[in-house]
Amino acid sequence: MANIAILGYGTVGSGVFAVVTNNQDVVARKAGQAVNIKKVLDLRDFPGDPVEPYLTHRFEDILEDEGIDVVVEVMSGINPAYSFSKRALEAGKSVVTSNKAVVAQHGDELIDTARAHGVSYLFEASVGGAIPIIRPLMTSLTADHITEVWGILNGTTNYILTEMAEKGAAFADVLKEAQKLGYAEADPTADVEGHDACRKIAILSSLAYGKTVDFQQIPTEGITKITAEDIAYGKEMGCAIKLLGTSKKTAHGISAMVAPYFLPLSHPLASVNGVFNAIFVKGDMSGETMYYGSGAGKLTTASAVTADIIDAIHQKSVFLDWDTSAQLQVEAKDEVPAKAFVRVAFSHKDTAKKTCNDLFAVVKFVELDAFGDEFGLVVDALTEAQLAEKAALLAQAPGIDQVRNIIRMEE
Amino acid sequence: MANIAILGYGTVGSGVFAVVTNNQDVVARKAGQAVNIKKVLDLRDFPGDPVEPYLTHRFEDILEDEGIDVVVEVMSGINPAYSFSKRALEAGKSVVTSNKAVVAQHGDELIDTARAHGVSYLFEASVGGAIPIIRPLMTSLTADHITEVWGILNGTTNYILTEMAEKGAAFADVLKEAQKLGYAEADPTADVEGHDACRKIAILSSLAYGKTVDFQQIPTEGITKITAEDIAYGKEMGCAIKLLGTSKKTAHGISAMVAPYFLPLSHPLASVNGVFNAIFVKGDMSGETMYYGSGAGKLTTASAVTADIIDAIHQKSVFLDWDTSAQLQVEAKDEVPAKAFVRVAFSHKDTAKKTCNDLFAVVKFVELDAFGDEFGLVVDALTEAQLAEKAALLAQAPGIDQVRNIIRMEE
Repeated sequence: MANIAILGYGTVGSGVFAVVTNNQDVVARKAGQAVNIKKVLDLRDFPGDPVEPYLTHRFEDILEDEGIDVVVEVMSGINPAYSFSKRALEAGKSVVTSNKAVVAQHGDELIDTARAHGVSYLFEASVGGAIPIIRPLMTSLTADHITEVWGILNGTTNYILTEMAEKGAAFADVLKEAQKLGYAEADPTADVEGHDACRKIAILSSLAYGKTVDFQQIPTEGITKITAEDIAYGKEMGCAIKLLGTSKKTAHGISAMVAPYFLPLSHPLASVNGVFNAIFVKGDMSGETMYYGSGAGKLTTASAVTADIIDAIHQKSVFLDWDTSAQLQVEAKDEVPAKAFVRVAFSHKDTAKKTCNDLFAVVKFVELDAFGDEFGLVVDALTEAQLAEKAALLAQAPGIDQVRNIIRMEE
Repeated sequence: MANIAILGYGTVGSGVFAVVTNNQDVVARKAGQAVNIKKVLDLRDFPGDPVEPYLTHRFEDILEDEGIDVVVEVMSGINPAYSFSKRALEAGKSVVTSNKAVVAQHGDELIDTARAHGVSYLFEASVGGAIPIIRPLMTSLTADHITEVWGILNGTTNYILTEMAEKGAAFADVLKEAQKLGYAEADPTADVEGHDACRKIAILSSLAYGKTVDFQQIPTEGITKITAEDIAYGKEMGCAIKLLGTSKKTAHGISAMVAPYFLPLSHPLASVNGVFNAIFVKGDMSGETMYYGSGAGKLTTASAVTADIIDAIHQKSVFLDWDTSAQLQVEAKDEVPAKAFVRVAFSHKDTAKKTCNDLFAVVKFVELDAFGDEFGLVVDALTEAQLAEKAALLAQAPGIDQVRNIIRMEE
């Protein structure tokens, strides 16, 4: 029998408690032995809850219990989650987590600590909720050089964008609704500003390319500037807006970015709606494979956490192909020219259009009757640097009143 | 250093040779040691080919070579692939294969043999080409009771159906073209009659539910009866036709089937085109996850084979949750009533429609100007048994000349 402890009895923690308890038959079969929840750490009491007999308020009760083999860190935020994880690993216990903030910031160090003590630091649930993505990268796509990883990595923003598209509603209204339903947190910054997706693409990149990627180097835009008007233009063009995390191996490092993109409706990611996530991986032999599933939710995330618990029990020291002594630099977004959508308010329409034609390789203008003081345009052949430069010029150019938004386009 | 031998230098065999040779850096890193191709068995000679120095015509050269740890069986057909695999396992060598015919027919026995000799019998590449699906089932979705598996499992038929839809061409013409391009074999029966998909859904079901499923019990229809007319009706209804393998856990066994289905264009599987495959898995905790990638191709399939080679070297005895002593019965397709599409040629149109309305819960009639002597109809609330029974009645009923096709519908 293997004993585990859970740090944090919040959404994911109570989910892990439920999965390990309710599915103990299959968990035991896969782990090769019964898995027993011995202690649960939380500062709160839960009178009447099934967790009550297991509760402790002191981390040391878990740390000093030599019978506990695996510690499940499902708290949120960096501290004390990071220090608890570090101390547990140093005590020779494997640590399993869904905490992407800790993994993105201290993952390399905690993996080192785990290796030094012959145990595992595992974090499948930190990316893509229930979707198996880290283990396929580590154990299935092993014959490949991975060259790209990208996808929809944040359930909250995907839910908001889906609702905005379906209801034609404004960002702020949908966000409020999402908070009411528990799909967005009281402080939604990490999700809506793209910070969460940024940490996830950094974690995936580190594993895909086998060296540490610093999430702080990844240019990140969220969805707070996306309006109902942008979505209306998208519909006119046959496009959906999705927040993508992207990463690509380059000669000397990687290029990576988090930003909202217009995708044609025929694109496989365009039909990934609500809290679902989907991640593409490109390998030099396997080609493109894609992984799809629920990116959020108590039991779905807990199922991924529990799979890691089983792995840590089954193997003790699980192999991760992540050379923590090496770092990959995030370079400026690679210079493959791409399309973008630009929305401008004009002071004089014809002059504004002439300005646009002078500045850009205009693919087409998109005009919607409902918006009388502006138009959209699709522009081609722009690198990230050119896009930034031309956007600055555009704002000052004749006939232009204001650049209302710029959204990248995928084909 | 680990030594391997490859049985068969055909498409997949030469692909494995290329992957192991070209990606030896990453293969060695993941396997924990260099991987060396020591011998390749083929009855043919390949003068001037890089394989030449490794070739042997005698299986015994491989069997009796104690330095060979892993045997890669990438022949086709049951024999001698099966007996070679059995003998290699008995000699204490792990066997890795892409041969779904052998796995479906003898997989349980070969797994037993592998277990008895402390080695592995692995077959990730037998289902879904490059898509990691068997390993995620065995190592990622471990906290779940799997309740359903279904998807597009055959690249050849999906290529044919995609081409038929895009070009409005007839089955026979597209098949001929596919054979020319190497996407279909000279004898295409196994693919177009659904036998290949049947074996794959049997293999997936055995692993998903942990007990042997006999592929011969699974009702199987291919795509040979699908016509350009069916596809035209589909377009009118906003549907694509896909050959699906489906499997669902029931109280006492499973229900399973291979058949062409109409899917609405908004369905995630409707946009899986060409030789791509996609597989959905439903777990009681993880919900629905989906796996997508190239279902055929030399290097893509070889990448999955090579990942198994690495696993067999890294772990030697790889855990498969498949109780080979237990068998799951395939029951009659479960009695959840569903929709179907029926195409009838009429001798008298109004009488024929009245007949249809009397026999079926008609959702709608679909009439296309181009087809003057027939109409289609969508019918609802039919179990498989009722569908068969009513189709027989319909053929004899007033106003009906002929039932031209019946195609199931997914929503």
